[in-house]
Amino acid sequence: MNKLAVVALGGNALLRGNQKGTIEEQVQNTTDTLENLVPLLKEGYNLVIGHGNGPQVGNILMQHDAGEQMYTIPQMPLDVCVADSQGAIGYMIERSLRNVLRKHGINREVCCVVTPVVVDKNDPAFKNPTKRVGRVYTKEQADELAVSRGWVFKEEVKDTVSGWRRVVPSPKPIGIMNESIIEQLVSQGVIVIAAGGGGVPVYIDEAGNVCGSEAVIDKDLASSLLANRIKADEFYILTDVPYVYINYKKPNEKKLEFLNKADTDRYLTEGMFGEGNMAPKIKACLQFIEQGGHKSVITEATKLSDKSYGTKLTLEYED
Amino acid sequence: MNKLAVVALGGNALLRGNQKGTIEEQVQNTTDTLENLVPLLKEGYNLVIGHGNGPQVGNILMQHDAGEQMYTIPQMPLDVCVADSQGAIGYMIERSLRNVLRKHGINREVCCVVTPVVVDKNDPAFKNPTKRVGRVYTKEQADELAVSRGWVFKEEVKDTVSGWRRVVPSPKPIGIMNESIIEQLVSQGVIVIAAGGGGVPVYIDEAGNVCGSEAVIDKDLASSLLANRIKADEFYILTDVPYVYINYKKPNEKKLEFLNKADTDRYLTEGMFGEGNMAPKIKACLQFIEQGGHKSVITEATKLSDKSYGTKLTLEYED
Repeated sequence: MNKLAVVALGGNALLRGNQKGTIEEQVQNTTDTLENLVPLLKEGYNLVIGHGNGPQVGNILMQHDAGEQMYTIPQMPLDVCVADSQGAIGYMIERSLRNVLRKHGINREVCCVVTPVVVDKNDPAFKNPTKRVGRVYTKEQADELAVSRGWVFKEEVKDTVSGWRRVVPSPKPIGIMNESIIEQLVSQGVIVIAAGGGGVPVYIDEAGNVCGSEAVIDKDLASSLLANRIKADEFYILTDVPYVYINYKKPNEKKLEFLNKADTDRYLTEGMFGEGNMAPKIKACLQFIEQGGHKSVITEATKLSDKSYGTKLTLEYED
Repeated sequence: MNKLAVVALGGNALLRGNQKGTIEEQVQNTTDTLENLVPLLKEGYNLVIGHGNGPQVGNILMQHDAGEQMYTIPQMPLDVCVADSQGAIGYMIERSLRNVLRKHGINREVCCVVTPVVVDKNDPAFKNPTKRVGRVYTKEQADELAVSRGWVFKEEVKDTVSGWRRVVPSPKPIGIMNESIIEQLVSQGVIVIAAGGGGVPVYIDEAGNVCGSEAVIDKDLASSLLANRIKADEFYILTDVPYVYINYKKPNEKKLEFLNKADTDRYLTEGMFGEGNMAPKIKACLQFIEQGGHKSVITEATKLSDKSYGTKLTLEYED
């Protein structure tokens, strides 16, 4: 049996912060990133690709805002915006990957499945929205939108810009719709692009109906959950550093090549990982091995071809 | 073996021209339309749902235009905009259909597959773009965009508005990517949402690479091609009339309940169907039965429960 890996690409792997975000840039970034998956495919891995959507869904929200102001087109809620981004990014990954596979003579099907991800509507995150999305508003605009749409705002001071930004909840993913379809496709060797942007957030109401949720789901947690549900062997988070470090960028910085559950728990308790950055990735990796996965890896995309790179997280240290 | 039907929903089945296009309106329209598919499902049909995206991709183009003007966010090309709309509309259909199925106690999986559709880059349509998309520009703006982006414009005078609109080619679909995946999923009873908006237009270049195409594909032709490729038994186009008519809205108007290939060919040659409206639908239906399908039906969604309604097109008249 081929091994199954779920690989979560960061949003920046596709659209970088210092770029304008033209289609040419996005296709080039995507192709460069996907080239790094070739070694896994040549080893015969089955593969699911998850991806972020931060910069893209940010653009979509701004475009909806502008479209409403200029052309009175109603803005769509966040779940629909995430679905938008799954379609567009999924297509770009599929197209680029087909061309990369062709270049390397690898014969695999590629398919993007729009993926709703279930959250609990009683998740405490709904009482404490923290994730900043969309444009910067003035105090007056924010107050008006708080009344007319029920949006919640927090003040933001960043560089020379200050103003108010909408904050939305980031609840925990608890279920992956279409997980059985995804599992079945990958078992046949299809490379499936799924749970993009953390998944389209939905909840199940009292009557049992599926409803859209104005939230965003952490993409690493969603990919990790999906990896468990489809019984993946390995879970990769591709980011912009080759290893995880403790005391990152301090004089006593230490590179971590191997982590077991006990040490990881301890480091997390001690706050040794950046809270807004590496800690959520570590938690997603930990969740994967606690729920039955064999190994989680955090590394740079370009380091995938060399297995000596990357921080490997397993339940117990391996010999 | 269960029969397999491909049902193509009009863009207006989801978002109506006289509505503002809020999410509440779209979900309600979608749910109402999908309710009409329940009789087919209760008969045990396997099902693929195609759909239009005219009003939605129109909104996306306007939002991209506004986002560029207000926030300098680069506009995405048409293929990416269609992929956007497949994600958003596919999600809305999936969510609404899950709730409709639940209400009727039908236990089926539902899944939206992002679907690139291949066109020939030498299709004559590329030399004669005809499909109007996006906002209305002034002559000066149109001239500038023609130079800076290579867009083609045609003058438009409609009601009180006059100006210039971008026109794009509408080439013939010649291949459906992921057709084998779609076929396999439906054979297991999964209701698959596919080829939305006519599919994400792509072409294969000389080197064999998949490239995005700035075009739109007729959604009925794409659904018809998909229906053939996955060996569907029946192909339905749901529109806003219960039957096809000849001499529509004239004193000698005649309702057509049954059509065979010979009569259909003759009526088409005689120009008996509206060129911009019913003729393309008839051609899509004809293509389906010519390529091996058993029956094509054109009718209103609300008439699906009563098989006496609808214009049925078969190779030969049936007894």
